[in-house]
Amino acid sequence: MYFYKEDLINQIVVDKPDPAAAKVLQETLGGQFGEMRTMMQYFFQSSNFRGKATQYRDLIRGVFLEEISHVELVQHTINQLLNGSGVEQPGNAGADAAPLDEAVKHANPHHYIVGAQSSLPVDAAGNPWLGNYVYNHGNLISDLLDNVVLESTGVLQKSRIYEMSSNQTFRETLAFLMVRDNSHQNAFAKALETLGVDWGNLFPIPNYDIDKYPECRKYVELGYHNAQFNFRMDSTRIGEIFSGQTPSRNEGELKVIPPPDGFPLPYLPDLPSEHSPGLYDLNA
Amino acid sequence: MYFYKEDLINQIVVDKPDPAAAKVLQETLGGQFGEMRTMMQYFFQSSNFRGKATQYRDLIRGVFLEEISHVELVQHTINQLLNGSGVEQPGNAGADAAPLDEAVKHANPHHYIVGAQSSLPVDAAGNPWLGNYVYNHGNLISDLLDNVVLESTGVLQKSRIYEMSSNQTFRETLAFLMVRDNSHQNAFAKALETLGVDWGNLFPIPNYDIDKYPECRKYVELGYHNAQFNFRMDSTRIGEIFSGQTPSRNEGELKVIPPPDGFPLPYLPDLPSEHSPGLYDLNA
Amino acid sequence: MYFYKEDLINQIVVDKPDPAAAKVLQETLGGQFGEMRTMMQYFFQSSNFRGKATQYRDLIRGVFLEEISHVELVQHTINQLLNGSGVEQPGNAGADAAPLDEAVKHANPHHYIVGAQSSLPVDAAGNPWLGNYVYNHGNLISDLLDNVVLESTGVLQKSRIYEMSSNQTFRETLAFLMVRDNSHQNAFAKALETLGVDWGNLFPIPNYDIDKYPECRKYVELGYHNAQFNFRMDSTRIGEIFSGQTPSRNEGELKVIPPPDGFPLPYLPDLPSEHSPGLYDLNA
Amino acid sequence: MYFYKEDLINQIVVDKPDPAAAKVLQETLGGQFGEMRTMMQYFFQSSNFRGKATQYRDLIRGVFLEEISHVELVQHTINQLLNGSGVEQPGNAGADAAPLDEAVKHANPHHYIVGAQSSLPVDAAGNPWLGNYVYNHGNLISDLLDNVVLESTGVLQKSRIYEMSSNQTFRETLAFLMVRDNSHQNAFAKALETLGVDWGNLFPIPNYDIDKYPECRKYVELGYHNAQFNFRMDSTRIGEIFSGQTPSRNEGELKVIPPPDGFPLPYLPDLPSEHSPGLYDLNA
Amino acid sequence: MYFYKEDLINQIVVDKPDPAAAKVLQETLGGQFGEMRTMMQYFFQSSNFRGKATQYRDLIRGVFLEEISHVELVQHTINQLLNGSGVEQPGNAGADAAPLDEAVKHANPHHYIVGAQSSLPVDAAGNPWLGNYVYNHGNLISDLLDNVVLESTGVLQKSRIYEMSSNQTFRETLAFLMVRDNSHQNAFAKALETLGVDWGNLFPIPNYDIDKYPECRKYVELGYHNAQFNFRMDSTRIGEIFSGQTPSRNEGELKVIPPPDGFPLPYLPDLPSEHSPGLYDLNA
Amino acid sequence: MYFYKEDLINQIVVDKPDPAAAKVLQETLGGQFGEMRTMMQYFFQSSNFRGKATQYRDLIRGVFLEEISHVELVQHTINQLLNGSGVEQPGNAGADAAPLDEAVKHANPHHYIVGAQSSLPVDAAGNPWLGNYVYNHGNLISDLLDNVVLESTGVLQKSRIYEMSSNQTFRETLAFLMVRDNSHQNAFAKALETLGVDWGNLFPIPNYDIDKYPECRKYVELGYHNAQFNFRMDSTRIGEIFSGQTPSRNEGELKVIPPPDGFPLPYLPDLPSEHSPGLYDLNA
Repeated sequence: MYFYKEDLINQIVVDKPDPAAAKVLQETLGGQFGEMRTMMQYFFQSSNFRGKATQYRDLIRGVFLEEISHVELVQHTINQLLNGSGVEQPGNAGADAAPLDEAVKHANPHHYIVGAQSSLPVDAAGNPWLGNYVYNHGNLISDLLDNVVLESTGVLQKSRIYEMSSNQTFRETLAFLMVRDNSHQNAFAKALETLGVDWGNLFPIPNYDIDKYPECRKYVELGYHNAQFNFRMDSTRIGEIFSGQTPSRNEGELKVIPPPDGFPLPYLPDLPSEHSPGLYDLNA
Repeated sequence: MYFYKEDLINQIVVDKPDPAAAKVLQETLGGQFGEMRTMMQYFFQSSNFRGKATQYRDLIRGVFLEEISHVELVQHTINQLLNGSGVEQPGNAGADAAPLDEAVKHANPHHYIVGAQSSLPVDAAGNPWLGNYVYNHGNLISDLLDNVVLESTGVLQKSRIYEMSSNQTFRETLAFLMVRDNSHQNAFAKALETLGVDWGNLFPIPNYDIDKYPECRKYVELGYHNAQFNFRMDSTRIGEIFSGQTPSRNEGELKVIPPPDGFPLPYLPDLPSEHSPGLYDLNA
Repeated sequence: MYFYKEDLINQIVVDKPDPAAAKVLQETLGGQFGEMRTMMQYFFQSSNFRGKATQYRDLIRGVFLEEISHVELVQHTINQLLNGSGVEQPGNAGADAAPLDEAVKHANPHHYIVGAQSSLPVDAAGNPWLGNYVYNHGNLISDLLDNVVLESTGVLQKSRIYEMSSNQTFRETLAFLMVRDNSHQNAFAKALETLGVDWGNLFPIPNYDIDKYPECRKYVELGYHNAQFNFRMDSTRIGEIFSGQTPSRNEGELKVIPPPDGFPLPYLPDLPSEHSPGLYDLNA
Repeated sequence: MYFYKEDLINQIVVDKPDPAAAKVLQETLGGQFGEMRTMMQYFFQSSNFRGKATQYRDLIRGVFLEEISHVELVQHTINQLLNGSGVEQPGNAGADAAPLDEAVKHANPHHYIVGAQSSLPVDAAGNPWLGNYVYNHGNLISDLLDNVVLESTGVLQKSRIYEMSSNQTFRETLAFLMVRDNSHQNAFAKALETLGVDWGNLFPIPNYDIDKYPECRKYVELGYHNAQFNFRMDSTRIGEIFSGQTPSRNEGELKVIPPPDGFPLPYLPDLPSEHSPGLYDLNA
Repeated sequence: MYFYKEDLINQIVVDKPDPAAAKVLQETLGGQFGEMRTMMQYFFQSSNFRGKATQYRDLIRGVFLEEISHVELVQHTINQLLNGSGVEQPGNAGADAAPLDEAVKHANPHHYIVGAQSSLPVDAAGNPWLGNYVYNHGNLISDLLDNVVLESTGVLQKSRIYEMSSNQTFRETLAFLMVRDNSHQNAFAKALETLGVDWGNLFPIPNYDIDKYPECRKYVELGYHNAQFNFRMDSTRIGEIFSGQTPSRNEGELKVIPPPDGFPLPYLPDLPSEHSPGLYDLNA
Repeated sequence: MYFYKEDLINQIVVDKPDPAAAKVLQETLGGQFGEMRTMMQYFFQSSNFRGKATQYRDLIRGVFLEEISHVELVQHTINQLLNGSGVEQPGNAGADAAPLDEAVKHANPHHYIVGAQSSLPVDAAGNPWLGNYVYNHGNLISDLLDNVVLESTGVLQKSRIYEMSSNQTFRETLAFLMVRDNSHQNAFAKALETLGVDWGNLFPIPNYDIDKYPECRKYVELGYHNAQFNFRMDSTRIGEIFSGQTPSRNEGELKVIPPPDGFPLPYLPDLPSEHSPGLYDLNA
């Protein structure tokens, strides 16, 4: 069973609205290699786990639990990027006004039509998330190798999306997630090390220079690239795998640590032009 | 952030393998009106919530938290239904053997090919789950009305699936979920009552006779059709809505209560014929 | 604008329930070359028509109008094939009963889960209908050639589906539609004749022997393979194309005629096991 | 059976071409909550209807019949918005010319590639229409509740799309359809009233101020928000439900009335750059 | 079996980067009527061929073989259009830089996120290629007619895409393929001539004036509109069909000829901002 | 450019028709991890390759070239499994005959409706192939790791499908492909070895015992698990990677060798009940 505290796993930095950035950040939420996929892939892999080597199940489930928070973080980041774009009132005063014109041209129009300037389960090209994104082969080695690929692609795509806007709301979330994907890459690579693989200098994938992403540095200084947050309320065997030397040439010791203290959810105000939430006066 | 205890929200009753039942039960997991949809729909609705009437957000999020456990419950139920079907060893002894022949003919073949006799993010016809199943209109009244429809369809479809096998693994999970969907139907109907609707005798939908579903009775006796489990580790305003008379003609008082004590996850053994988990001898 | 009389375009012959036949007949409703596709393809082609040669638009629209009735006919045929299968009451008396077991094994399970033993917008393999089935190139010659292919595939697939059950409900509808597709094939082939093509002996496609399909004969005797029904309440230029010698080697004169007199819609009774329609007693 | 008069259900107001508006208006045609979905949903619900309470079937079918005209109206509106954009002749005179450059950047490129500047069965993000948009649960109460949600979402999304351009071709169609969706919302809400629900002040959803949408006013003055057009050529029981006080706090009496007189279909000229219709000289 | 020489079937003309052109050219690669569809359609039709009239299979397979080269040509053309857009280094120096901003606004964002500025199996609207694009009816006449439609649509869509940018990389590839589609149109039309059809003046479809597309002329002068390249290393019966008078009013003699000499594949350099190929120093 | 010899890469062993086996073997053709995916994935990866380390491109392309032959082999295997099932003549003699009844119940009905008892671009559950199955990250290490996963899943799924029928047509093709996937697994694993990885005992994945699959043995004796067939007509750098010790604990030396001699394509006879090929008598 799953328990909740109303805290985000990282801060939402406030910057100007940026609907075009919101559009591309959808890839990190509902894309083929986004957080919804990692969340659901590890959910199925841990529920469908076979055999007694449950230290591997605990590792996979441990990452799954964090991914739920990642989905939540990206939803709120997209909402923050959309919030305040467009106009405040429905309808228009004259025939020349077309207040969401910019949204039509450079945003995902569904952000303004299907929802009320808020996140959607779609990718950067507007394609809906698909259940067959989830890979769960049932063979543990194949699943672990695939998870390495998935987390590597996570860093790779986020580092590319990072280039697409200098908005700080956008970049802070991407930077945090790049460091966390790096840690999860280490987790699955380490699991394969316990089965005899020596990775040499292969990791991290991609071969990125952390100094090029200034927002990443503080998370590296906190050791987040070598840490697994523990969201379990009971015991877990995750530490049997996630400990000792990192498989990455970036070096360091892998450690299971408590989750961050938590950050407040941003407040999304009423939006009359979207009829959201659209409650009428209860006393009328 | 999300915390976890390795407990199922309900028991898995052991009965014989039943791959045909596993196939149709996929509707309850990955179908258009299954648990993955309710889980993701309420996740998006609560993260994208606008305005200060946060008692409604807390209600929606409260149901979301339970739905994660429902997904987990159905995954394990499907696994239990598949477990032990087919043969135990790969390959075959002679040209006449075709051990999974029955699986080919009456099951979802993907249960034996894509995964290792385990659950998939697909529906009863084998179609993968789609992101556009999620409805989040951003208008609170539309969202609440839609959630009433969704929970009603949940009971409706489960009561139809129930007819498809008398397997007790299958029926126990369906019965528990029918009662819980009934409670969630009450939750969203009650929320609309606070906005002025008087439902008369409309609920429950469908108009089912609980005595026809013997496995349901104990859950009704526990009051589960009028209760919301509270998975929050901090405070919640859910009780401002979920309290007082039920909107259903089945009567009773709505109450927020602690979750069930939890039930053990079934053990899935090694399955050589599926190469699962397929770890080789580390000392070899 | 569209006006309606509650009449089917052909009779529904009553025979035994046949859920497996209902499953494959879905191809004729929601398949890539089924009646929903022809209906929507001709709808888009006629609304998007360009230029002054409106005799071609009137031809395409004339076929579109009939296709709406074809969709309706196949919906009712599928319903008739499903009606009376399964049991009459929800729940079960004992642990051994599993009343829809046969449906699970040889039918589309969605016929018993998603709807109440009734038709769905899907194909014989359970895939949902897709908007990109519709071809509307905007070039009249391409559109007409494609319509010839579409109607030829219509006869072809129906003649193959016909082999799959000897149920008379099933075969009567297929036979009527094969003859009508033949007429529509002639319509579009004739339109290309007016643009200079001489088809030689190419039609009908496929090269089928009408005597092999006994249910077809009466419709051929009525001349339905060479007739277009006129559903227009105002004037139409369809006769400028659909007249004179048929382009088929089966010979005969093309004629625009009034639609058939119409046949009653079958009555679908209450189905308690499906909670359909599921109205509770209003006086309770 | 279905009969046709070549009349649009409302006028097409001529304004400048606006390909970006055409792109977003596709949501109203082929979107998950657009006119193709309402049309097909009510078509399946009425054909698959069970039981003797046929006043509900006649209501659902009555709305279905109007939705065919709505699809036709939106197709022509999109065509009008596209017509005249781009250049008139194929090819180009010099290496610098790229006449449809604007289309590439701000329009749905398929409007210029797949069709000849005309409507498509897709949504505002370019996703094709899907058969699983259609909800037909087979339980009448669920179906009616879902139809209320669908019509509410119809008004909601159209009021949001309305903000995206001040083009009069675009806004006039949206305004007419918003008022009609309002009437259909009343129809399904009233049907649930006959089953005992008292909606209080819940409707209309969303809670919109008609004065903010100047194009809507004339349709409200005509009483179109409280009227059902009758497209039946035989008798119908629709009036047993659609009569008496509206369920909306906007007040008024529900009335079944004849359809509007009808408006001419706009003429779409030849478009050489699109090779449409592309007939060569027959005498050549 | 399939053998390869590293040669493109036509030249890649170097011009400036043009991401918006790359986006729309995806239609020619992964669109419903693009080169992936023709390639796979003819592959299935030739492998699934029935009967002894293998001259038709050899014709279909002959076109299939060329289509593999067409897919390769369009992949490289898209890569060339993307290459050099965006910046050269990952990360950024200051908060104001957002180097791929233009990509966000006018390109397919997946070109910069999913791949490393390179081609994707999607269409101009970003929809992934679908297996059901492939038509293989199993009836030879239907298949041939459908292939005529497919090749006609190929020329039609390419002539429309041609209008969207004057970039020479873009137009040269489109021009070559238009002429080749014309030849393939002739191939399938001729095959139907051998079955008795007289096409009159119907071809080419669309009725385009080659002089309007200056890049096409040299290919017409080479006779490429009336030639089939022979990629067979063994004997083939293709010449039994593809010979004699063209079915097009453009006149000429159909001839099977050897393939072009071949053109070099363009070199795609390292792209650090995309971490591609992203090999670290092996000696580090 | 691509050249062809009409030879299959392996033999088709003749056994009885087995439509249920044909249905599940579709996974190997059009499934998410089937031969169409490997073929298209390596096609895109090699065309989109960046940088000067072209020995890796030549390796990827080398495997791509073989995959085209694998697609062809599976198409013919499915055709052979379907051939001879059902009846020989269209129509029926009496009301009781329903000749394809078995096909309706245990086969993919599309094998008998959409095509003429022949292969389709779909998976074992009937879902069409999707372009987003193709992974081409643009980062060489990610691509290679993903290819290892893909080939491992290839062996894994084929070894599971192998259990589903003892038909020799079915098992011979699966056995050949399992050995070839093993070789391709070695190819991509070796490529990662050149980048510094030491795999230990990880391969082969899955950990299968070749003696359990008697049809595999002869291919292993031929050394096919350690060989790459060379389909290049010009020079290739593939041997710079594919040489030396295998990365698998099965041992042996990797070698680039010429392709097999080739095997004849089976003959598919006319099928009147499917109207295939359906040519009428030209002299009639």
